[in-house]
Amino acid sequence: MIEVLDALDYLGVFVFALSGALLASRKDMDLFGFIVLALMPAIGGGTIRDIVLDVPVFWIEDKNYLLLTLMAAVLTFFGCRQIERATRPLVWLDAVGLSVFCVLGAAKTLHITGDAVVAVVMGVVSAVAGGIIRDVIANDPPMVLRSEIYATAAFLGALVYGGFVSLGWPLAEWAGVLAALAARGSGILLGWSLPRSSGS
Amino acid sequence: MIEVLDALDYLGVFVFALSGALLASRKDMDLFGFIVLALMPAIGGGTIRDIVLDVPVFWIEDKNYLLLTLMAAVLTFFGCRQIERATRPLVWLDAVGLSVFCVLGAAKTLHITGDAVVAVVMGVVSAVAGGIIRDVIANDPPMVLRSEIYATAAFLGALVYGGFVSLGWPLAEWAGVLAALAARGSGILLGWSLPRSSGS
Amino acid sequence: MIEVLDALDYLGVFVFALSGALLASRKDMDLFGFIVLALMPAIGGGTIRDIVLDVPVFWIEDKNYLLLTLMAAVLTFFGCRQIERATRPLVWLDAVGLSVFCVLGAAKTLHITGDAVVAVVMGVVSAVAGGIIRDVIANDPPMVLRSEIYATAAFLGALVYGGFVSLGWPLAEWAGVLAALAARGSGILLGWSLPRSSGS
Repeated sequence: MIEVLDALDYLGVFVFALSGALLASRKDMDLFGFIVLALMPAIGGGTIRDIVLDVPVFWIEDKNYLLLTLMAAVLTFFGCRQIERATRPLVWLDAVGLSVFCVLGAAKTLHITGDAVVAVVMGVVSAVAGGIIRDVIANDPPMVLRSEIYATAAFLGALVYGGFVSLGWPLAEWAGVLAALAARGSGILLGWSLPRSSGS
Repeated sequence: MIEVLDALDYLGVFVFALSGALLASRKDMDLFGFIVLALMPAIGGGTIRDIVLDVPVFWIEDKNYLLLTLMAAVLTFFGCRQIERATRPLVWLDAVGLSVFCVLGAAKTLHITGDAVVAVVMGVVSAVAGGIIRDVIANDPPMVLRSEIYATAAFLGALVYGGFVSLGWPLAEWAGVLAALAARGSGILLGWSLPRSSGS
Repeated sequence: MIEVLDALDYLGVFVFALSGALLASRKDMDLFGFIVLALMPAIGGGTIRDIVLDVPVFWIEDKNYLLLTLMAAVLTFFGCRQIERATRPLVWLDAVGLSVFCVLGAAKTLHITGDAVVAVVMGVVSAVAGGIIRDVIANDPPMVLRSEIYATAAFLGALVYGGFVSLGWPLAEWAGVLAALAARGSGILLGWSLPRSSGS
């Protein structure tokens, strides 16, 4: 089960990287701009989490994260029409990434600090901080701060995960992921928080 | 005496958080936007200080900082007319926060590194870095970089504190706070550095 | 030879600081704004590198970096006409700074982690991250993300350095610096990546 989560973690990094690369495309950046904007959402939030917790930064220990991000940036740079047309699947894959990141971020923090409040905060940071930095660098109003169910879904996922762990219930990771996904999915289906459609 | 400073520290965090929440209100953000923009000035500068010094981040050890920030964000979100009308007291409370932050930031740094130059730099960082990030995320020109006596007051406070400590004089903390407050107060009374009124 | 590199490192910090101060001048900032915008390119990238690697931040151990940055900010604040007229030499000195920073950043990282991939990434971060933060704070579109040969030159320099070290060849530092300088120089001579001329 945890192995499935790890695979979804890689998927999330790749999809988050695509969100950055697509923004770079809309801003007419060069290849390096694609790479930087892809890196921010893909590894930015987790980097802040690890630095605040004072543990080794995750992408130094596992080079796959850098590789996946680079692939997403290069693919988008050379073939972005195809990727841009896939808006609908991308929104749902992004929701999967968000849900997995908030739970894995909270789980890592709980493992290190043993503190549920900090774990929930860091779950949200892992999932959304990188997206804020992506938008700030691209000079867009941060999407995360405008579409409520996006960050709220990450908060809910981390909270449900933390609750399950506190109560000693099984499958805490999956409960958190499903809670976040349900919340984010409602937002998508209700149509008022498609990533980036609420931009300036 | 130090207990009074600690109380003023909490007050400063609360007032700085209000400054972020009020900016979120002017930018029509949702509740999560209020929380993020409140967190930046309230705990951003101190977080950078602690990370650069490689010591445990202060708000992980004392959960009151997160709680106060959350309260400020929620209060502003649901009652911001009352808070927005209180411009004049808020400006002075903000000056108290600035004065306390620069001295406590310098004191913590001096305690850890024993280096007066780094202590003064970190005092200023503690007091103003979060406000810069707040404005950058909200896409405002950073207020701190435009109203001279704001950052200068923080610098003066940290410097006076450091000077008193170097000379072995008593009450270094209070001397620093009063120096910063006097400088910032002059700026307020002269009317050319009201927070945010000099924005674009 | 290494002593020459260290001297060029100081030169690079000074010139990068000038780039920030000149931007503050164009944005009509006050003296504190000059200092902040000078600090970002001068020490921002190396600070991020050291924090991610969890080693002591370089400018805490060697106060000359702060001093040089402060000098650049104050000089520009009080005499910026003369400095602004020196566009052509500044562009070339900036290229020297870029080339030295990417190699020294990669070398420090390789020394600490022993990992060539991370070393190349950190070489680029050391050289360009501070410039991105400078532009974001000043609300300019990041120059680094628009002029391709700028970041690409840093990447090339770090890569050549890493290659030489891996192969056990001598003078790896100088090979990296020359590679970066040649790439960046081509960009300058071809006229399509003068710092800041491509701004909004």
